[in-house]
Amino acid sequence: MTKINDHYLKLKAGYLFPEIGRRVSKFCGENPHAEVIRLGIGDVTEPLPHAIVEAMHAAVDEMGIRESFRGYGPEQGYDFLRDAIVANKYANRGIEISANEIFVSDGSKCDSGNILDIFGPENVIAVTDPVYPVYVDTNVMVGRTGERDDSGRYDGLVYLPVTSENNFVPALPDSHVDIVYLCYPNNPTGTVATKETLKKWVDYARQENTVILFDAAYEGYISDPEVPHSIFEIEGAKEVAIEFGSFSKTAGFTGTRCAWTVIPKSLVGIDAAGHAVDVHSLWGRRQSTKFNGVSYIIQKGATAAFSAQGKEEIEGLITFYMTNAKILRAGLESIGMSVYGGANAPYVWLKTPAGTGSWEFFDMLLEKAHLVGTPGSGFGPSGEGYFRLSAFNSRKNIETAVMRLVKAMS
Amino acid sequence: MTKINDHYLKLKAGYLFPEIGRRVSKFCGENPHAEVIRLGIGDVTEPLPHAIVEAMHAAVDEMGIRESFRGYGPEQGYDFLRDAIVANKYANRGIEISANEIFVSDGSKCDSGNILDIFGPENVIAVTDPVYPVYVDTNVMVGRTGERDDSGRYDGLVYLPVTSENNFVPALPDSHVDIVYLCYPNNPTGTVATKETLKKWVDYARQENTVILFDAAYEGYISDPEVPHSIFEIEGAKEVAIEFGSFSKTAGFTGTRCAWTVIPKSLVGIDAAGHAVDVHSLWGRRQSTKFNGVSYIIQKGATAAFSAQGKEEIEGLITFYMTNAKILRAGLESIGMSVYGGANAPYVWLKTPAGTGSWEFFDMLLEKAHLVGTPGSGFGPSGEGYFRLSAFNSRKNIETAVMRLVKAMS
Repeated sequence: MTKINDHYLKLKAGYLFPEIGRRVSKFCGENPHAEVIRLGIGDVTEPLPHAIVEAMHAAVDEMGIRESFRGYGPEQGYDFLRDAIVANKYANRGIEISANEIFVSDGSKCDSGNILDIFGPENVIAVTDPVYPVYVDTNVMVGRTGERDDSGRYDGLVYLPVTSENNFVPALPDSHVDIVYLCYPNNPTGTVATKETLKKWVDYARQENTVILFDAAYEGYISDPEVPHSIFEIEGAKEVAIEFGSFSKTAGFTGTRCAWTVIPKSLVGIDAAGHAVDVHSLWGRRQSTKFNGVSYIIQKGATAAFSAQGKEEIEGLITFYMTNAKILRAGLESIGMSVYGGANAPYVWLKTPAGTGSWEFFDMLLEKAHLVGTPGSGFGPSGEGYFRLSAFNSRKNIETAVMRLVKAMS
Repeated sequence: MTKINDHYLKLKAGYLFPEIGRRVSKFCGENPHAEVIRLGIGDVTEPLPHAIVEAMHAAVDEMGIRESFRGYGPEQGYDFLRDAIVANKYANRGIEISANEIFVSDGSKCDSGNILDIFGPENVIAVTDPVYPVYVDTNVMVGRTGERDDSGRYDGLVYLPVTSENNFVPALPDSHVDIVYLCYPNNPTGTVATKETLKKWVDYARQENTVILFDAAYEGYISDPEVPHSIFEIEGAKEVAIEFGSFSKTAGFTGTRCAWTVIPKSLVGIDAAGHAVDVHSLWGRRQSTKFNGVSYIIQKGATAAFSAQGKEEIEGLITFYMTNAKILRAGLESIGMSVYGGANAPYVWLKTPAGTGSWEFFDMLLEKAHLVGTPGSGFGPSGEGYFRLSAFNSRKNIETAVMRLVKAMS
């Protein structure tokens, strides 16, 4: 009989967000008149910029005319988009990344999971704790971990706690790791990494021959000029890092789908015989075999994010969401809560009241304030006692949420 | 140092189509005035139907307005599209498939590769020979094969030859296999499977507890009322089969990207302890963890393929391409060549002249007729001595191609 992949059975019953969905549905079913405000999942709420809408209309028209119709595109993305990404995300910061080091995809979630395909099963993996659950679950799925213990940790993974005790700066691993995931600005904590912190990691990676998987999906939210936007701002990173970038949270593409991955040609791994193999070629092979590229229409839309009008509109969106974050922070601080993040990231990470667990706080907030957030423990055991609120919402909802929160906590 | 996935090193140097591209580029570089006609890669040439263009314009507009903006959609696809697929591809043929057994994706290539994620490494895999290279390469990549031998076969895979000797009907495997790929109408041979052939496979799969991965990407090209469009037309298939469907070749979505996979809830595999596990849940978990759904705009476009106008326009496209196929067939037959397929599929599969290998024929055709086709041997050793021509092109190009072909072969 056909054997399933047993590693899937090690996964927790539900991915975090479906579990939240289940509890919210239940609550709404029992309280049909409650006006629930959702600050849980990090999903944008504002419409696509006009510049992008216009570009997609034009692309749709092109697809309807024989002369301009496009069939299969390059699996790695069209040059017009790869060039625009280089110009606006790397070259403008003095980073030398070439267009053929950019792989366009339909999402950073997909890429950060699929990237494991090209690495061997024996690699030791490190993640921060708390962490974006996809990094952990995709490693479990391919068998790079053992079973899950009572604390929620998987055997075989190296966890690097990030809590208020260490100011949300993960310590370097005690022992050698082959691959480490870093996400800055961080999901879920909303904190950022300084140049010094990233340099420490790049130096570690160069010394230990470790690959850094750097998730920069939230870089657009950085306003502090001292905070790096890309791991490639750090000297030597091109020999050790892969970076994931996304249009989701900046251009509002969570439902439109476009992202990119940078694999420098200078990044190498080793094969079983100990020979160096360039990782760029492996990913190129993976993508051309298992992926067919992103829709031409969507790539045209993404490119418009870099037009003068597109940039201006996106700046407006970011200011809008970051003002929401400030309002959330101020409200929480006004009632004496400990709050982190929310300054260069659209997430506010708060400490739950002493003695209140993350899910307990979730249920309380839903029950008393009709607010949905994300329990910190859903991101890993070290997230227990924390809670994430997302700044992605209308101004009115954010203001209402703060009022309800303050009332519920009083 | 970080270990790569060594299985990638077993792959042939180039995927078939990049190798064709390389030879064509070289030829065009040396012969800048040659008007090369490409009948190689199976890529559509006609524009998107108006109904789909209109639907995508409307969806783009929705995305530009706050009230109708859509963020993250369901990873499995929107209900409006899943319902339309059920109504127009299954319920209309009396097949009971429910909307939640449909998983919308960005391509059948992706799905047919990614589906391996949820099955264990110890499964024995069978493919027809010749075969769509993605089935083989994705198995090589995950380590389900040994090395490639001189004939081009990978150790550990079961190859089922399909040639003119067996009328392109693969024999059942001699020994037990856990997973078998079937593609009908077939790529590359353009042949179809009768109800009797499919019943034989379903009966085999039920007896042997084998999973059939059924690729129906070309079902829209079937005109013979006796030929089944879906494996699920065969009684009992819902316990043993997964089906891949696509908008690529019918609605012209090769550059727009939308497809679907059907996993019946009644399909089970077994875990290491021998317990039955439903495959539908595993794929749901895979997709919600490693995929973020297809763009709302694209799903709206795909749905319009099932509107009255959309269906009529698609019927027109299929008639157009199939008339091309008829012209190709007639031209080849007029000079006494042995030709297969091209009646219920957009591919014509021809026998190369005695003593002429597939790549030799490719080079000859490019050199003498400035025509690009696909060498049969690129699809597997049993494709040696065959050649694929695609009917996806303008009428004028098809007519010119036939004239040149006839001249070159005389």
